[in-house]
Amino acid sequence: MTILLAVSGWDLQPWLARLHALLPGREIVTPETIGDRAAVDYALSWRHPSGALADLPNLKAIFSLGAGVDHVFHDSGLPDVPIVRVVDADLRDRMSEWVVLHALIHLRQQRMYDWQQDQQIWDEDIDQPAAADIRVGILGLGALGADAARKLATIGFDVAGWSRSPRDVETIACFHGADGLEAMLARTDILVALLPLTPQTRGILNAALFAKLATDGRLGGPILLNAGRGGLQVEADILAALDTGVLKAASLDVFEVEPLPKASPLWRHPRVTISPHNAAVSTPDAIVRYIADQIAAYERGEKLRNVVDRATGY
Amino acid sequence: MTILLAVSGWDLQPWLARLHALLPGREIVTPETIGDRAAVDYALSWRHPSGALADLPNLKAIFSLGAGVDHVFHDSGLPDVPIVRVVDADLRDRMSEWVVLHALIHLRQQRMYDWQQDQQIWDEDIDQPAAADIRVGILGLGALGADAARKLATIGFDVAGWSRSPRDVETIACFHGADGLEAMLARTDILVALLPLTPQTRGILNAALFAKLATDGRLGGPILLNAGRGGLQVEADILAALDTGVLKAASLDVFEVEPLPKASPLWRHPRVTISPHNAAVSTPDAIVRYIADQIAAYERGEKLRNVVDRATGY
Repeated sequence: MTILLAVSGWDLQPWLARLHALLPGREIVTPETIGDRAAVDYALSWRHPSGALADLPNLKAIFSLGAGVDHVFHDSGLPDVPIVRVVDADLRDRMSEWVVLHALIHLRQQRMYDWQQDQQIWDEDIDQPAAADIRVGILGLGALGADAARKLATIGFDVAGWSRSPRDVETIACFHGADGLEAMLARTDILVALLPLTPQTRGILNAALFAKLATDGRLGGPILLNAGRGGLQVEADILAALDTGVLKAASLDVFEVEPLPKASPLWRHPRVTISPHNAAVSTPDAIVRYIADQIAAYERGEKLRNVVDRATGY
Repeated sequence: MTILLAVSGWDLQPWLARLHALLPGREIVTPETIGDRAAVDYALSWRHPSGALADLPNLKAIFSLGAGVDHVFHDSGLPDVPIVRVVDADLRDRMSEWVVLHALIHLRQQRMYDWQQDQQIWDEDIDQPAAADIRVGILGLGALGADAARKLATIGFDVAGWSRSPRDVETIACFHGADGLEAMLARTDILVALLPLTPQTRGILNAALFAKLATDGRLGGPILLNAGRGGLQVEADILAALDTGVLKAASLDVFEVEPLPKASPLWRHPRVTISPHNAAVSTPDAIVRYIADQIAAYERGEKLRNVVDRATGY
């Protein structure tokens, strides 16, 4: 009846408070305070220190505390128990807020209007396409990609999505596989990356991919939104594509190295909008509620939901 | 078979081009080029010069070329024929783009993150409510308000709306009348003004109204979005409310005087975001298509749609 909370870089206090509140009667320990290792039933991980989950003979499952599970696999001593992803409406909705916000910032030329305001310039005659004129392509049609797709379509964007294997999301055009990727990119003005980070997707946002994006769109060039994982993108290629006009602009929430180093030219690029990896923050309240529900169901004899397939890595 | 195009402050050329294309066989004249006044069947107005529509004995209807018809009533010599409002999906969708964009800019603290980027500050630990935590109140539930309400609700905001007379918009809480206005304001964190400008609504966005907004919200104070009409707002009261904390911030697309004078302190206020009355631009293509469809239907014997009630002014 012990839960091991193994995280790096986060404030533990709000997590401990929610765990005590929603899992009463359990002991909550950290790698520093752990006593009887055989008492640990479940581990909760966010970038847990390598080896922290080893030698737990009665461990039943590992829960990731944020979107994505690539951080769990960094541990070469990972025990062979189910790894559970977060599939949470709160986290999903926050991600879609970020995606819709940044799609609209680029559609409605908000940075240019901010500059005009700063200069006290009133110019209402700038060409303004409607959302319906803009083709959005979403890489990844999991819980996050499918929700963002639906919301972008509701706003009026012309939305398509791509996933590795066939998916069907209502109201949008769905592509899959290698051929499908080329076809979707060729009709994409705003590319939204919401893929998991796996060996297959690492570095996928590179020069070769950017060269396949539509060049006949209404925004003056294709635009990249990445709120998936920093490892998906090759930042040198993004900068080169921005400077040669292959990309018009980018909104980035994630980076190869985080926090983004002060020396990165992304910070000061006039057509890059940066947020500090907080597009969809894991709130302890929503995530602990999800985990407590899963544990309760599991202990009633139900199966764990949203278990990671170790072969695909998500 | 003559159409009179009577506008102020707009470039005529794109309108003339679309009128000739979509209404072939009609003569298109302006107040400057008009010959036989008895030949004029229809007048198209955007802030038409006072008196320009007088003495047209066979005039059948006046079409407004943009959202809102208050500009038509400035003419004391207005003939007594039906006045037709624009109800156009393109214009409506563009307005909702602006409303959703600005609601999300305030929700997601975009101006603060822009500043952080400028300062190369990486701070991911800022308190971030979800859209579901934020209560939006929409003033006006016509075609524009109802559409914005639905889209904001899809993004996840907790949306209510108010109209003078009872309305029913699915998925949102609907208020009406004077008591309903007070009740809605008391639960409003982001107020969206999409009212027509009438003698009853002129100056409605004033200190007395701001004082009735919710003070227990998650955004640090209520926020005003006005994309309706500049005449709805008392700018001195907005500035005072921002300075005393009664309002936290505002996004304004419309102003008492347009273009907004260089001397206006709104330009440089750090918590005011300005757009140059282009939240929903009338595109000649969509508007002329709507008018041509209406004329064709009318001449087949059908009734004109979206005729203004002169008693209420919208």
